[in-house]
Amino acid sequence: MIYKAHGGDWHGYSVEYGRPPIDFSANVNPLGAPEGVKRALRESAERAHLYPDPLCRELRRSIAAHLSVSAEQIECGAGAADLIWRLGLAVKPKSAAVTAPTFSEYAAAMSASGCEVFRHDLPERDGFNVTERLLDGLNSDALFICNPNNPTSLTVEPSLMLKIADYCRERGILLVVDECFNAFLDEPELHSLIRRVDEYPNLLILRAFTKLYGMAGVRLGFCVSSDTDLLSRIAASGQPWAVSGAAQAAGVSALAEREYVAATMAVIREGKSYLTSELEKLGHTVLGCEANYIFFKTKDTQLAEKLLEKGVMLRECSGYEGLGAGYYRIAARTMEDNRQLIERMKN
Amino acid sequence: MIYKAHGGDWHGYSVEYGRPPIDFSANVNPLGAPEGVKRALRESAERAHLYPDPLCRELRRSIAAHLSVSAEQIECGAGAADLIWRLGLAVKPKSAAVTAPTFSEYAAAMSASGCEVFRHDLPERDGFNVTERLLDGLNSDALFICNPNNPTSLTVEPSLMLKIADYCRERGILLVVDECFNAFLDEPELHSLIRRVDEYPNLLILRAFTKLYGMAGVRLGFCVSSDTDLLSRIAASGQPWAVSGAAQAAGVSALAEREYVAATMAVIREGKSYLTSELEKLGHTVLGCEANYIFFKTKDTQLAEKLLEKGVMLRECSGYEGLGAGYYRIAARTMEDNRQLIERMKN
Repeated sequence: MIYKAHGGDWHGYSVEYGRPPIDFSANVNPLGAPEGVKRALRESAERAHLYPDPLCRELRRSIAAHLSVSAEQIECGAGAADLIWRLGLAVKPKSAAVTAPTFSEYAAAMSASGCEVFRHDLPERDGFNVTERLLDGLNSDALFICNPNNPTSLTVEPSLMLKIADYCRERGILLVVDECFNAFLDEPELHSLIRRVDEYPNLLILRAFTKLYGMAGVRLGFCVSSDTDLLSRIAASGQPWAVSGAAQAAGVSALAEREYVAATMAVIREGKSYLTSELEKLGHTVLGCEANYIFFKTKDTQLAEKLLEKGVMLRECSGYEGLGAGYYRIAARTMEDNRQLIERMKN
Repeated sequence: MIYKAHGGDWHGYSVEYGRPPIDFSANVNPLGAPEGVKRALRESAERAHLYPDPLCRELRRSIAAHLSVSAEQIECGAGAADLIWRLGLAVKPKSAAVTAPTFSEYAAAMSASGCEVFRHDLPERDGFNVTERLLDGLNSDALFICNPNNPTSLTVEPSLMLKIADYCRERGILLVVDECFNAFLDEPELHSLIRRVDEYPNLLILRAFTKLYGMAGVRLGFCVSSDTDLLSRIAASGQPWAVSGAAQAAGVSALAEREYVAATMAVIREGKSYLTSELEKLGHTVLGCEANYIFFKTKDTQLAEKLLEKGVMLRECSGYEGLGAGYYRIAARTMEDNRQLIERMKN
């Protein structure tokens, strides 16, 4: 049986259908991990018996240099999702606001820590965009913003994002901004708050190596904040060895990749342009495509199931709070895969 | 600075001293990971971009076959420590009892989930053994027993262990038995409750690949229970992709290793015999050595610090609740390393 709480269950698909799928349901770099990362992973096999550095010293230094922040402002985890769960235990907010739709782990992790979760609807009439209405009476202990949002592939308008950050700072609301897909945007800097962590002590930014560097299987993410006390509490809210030795080595190696990132962006841009145009020709409505994935709707509520039979996995979105049947998310992949998808959609 | 909450910070040592230590502070297989595991890790680098199977299907099947339990009775995590933290969130016991001394993550994880932790002292006059006194008035929601215990390297007498399990079953106390070092015992089966999980629905057993298979850097552990509802809650109390793709592949490969395990046991036995005899010749008192590590005391409360200067790491135990200065834990390593340790102790 395919696991459907999130996309990317290639294993479940392979068992059920006897062959691997073309997987559009996981938003991971279609080029796979760069050769340098794979080499680092292979080499780390020789150090399998050593406990990982619990403080991720070298990795944090590398990330700090890469992002021009201080290493003390960084905490690493086994993927951004690991940090979301640690955060719940570390802060135990009484209440948290999330948008609907958005990545479901925020609400899952907060609820597990005994937090009441409030959902702020992003209605289709607003194009699923975050608007200033988000701030109307907002008074929860924490607010989660996924920017660009998953699954909508839409960013928050930069001036509104600052307004939200100001609002939260004034009221002591912990603002968690998930920037895991930021690197795929056309203007990543414009949409990131990382350069502003010193101005906003109430801000925690999530990032991951998962998507950009094709490292979903490796499990590596991090968060950035100027609240180093909060980072210490996050570190103390889970096992000391969350980040494997292999992930630490792979992360250091990944940050040296520049050509690979440029090549990735070229593939993603070509793919998004082709896919959005073809989806629209097929009568589907593209609702967002700022990140490396496309959010669209169609009248065919069985689209994902039909394509499963044809060897293709989409992310069917009815499981997201705030979305019904007929909404789908697909990653931009290589042109060969993209053409396969469109061809199989046509048949 | 060396991280001292647990042993095994070879990285911190290497930075501080400019060379790697001979590390007796981590209780990991001195032979390193078996070649088959290293090969599985290297090969998994090619699948780095794929999300790990969130349900660990193949790995759970392999463990189930290996232990003669059902795959439904197994839940995997990124090391046993990951499962301890998930358990806190999954069960949120109001109160939990731990022994003193023992592995500190039980209390840390339970406290983080808002649980009151009671410490049951294992006094030196009882040789640090668990006795029937543990059950006097025991009425917490959960009880953690590390068997063999860390750092004492002592098992609970098998008939007492069953008495404890009976007591907990009668009163609905969740009994968590950490058997992470079970495989190093001379009679592992005699000291394991795994074959009895069907009799005790209140029992959860922790195991790890970390120590026996030299996989500390990989992060892989699992728990076994006949309470499959509890296992589902543990699975839902953390991120879905806790176990990396590499760890899953390595785990499947590790379970095929039989000669390596036999070779390991030969090295450990020779090492323990040599080390206990030499430690006693040096006037130290060996207090326990049933697992792959030795617990001893000495009048020299600066022993670990002095040996750091000589390139050797011991586990200084004063950080454990219930222990003061002068208690140490060392892993049995290869005879070459063991001789180095004794030589440097003599000087």
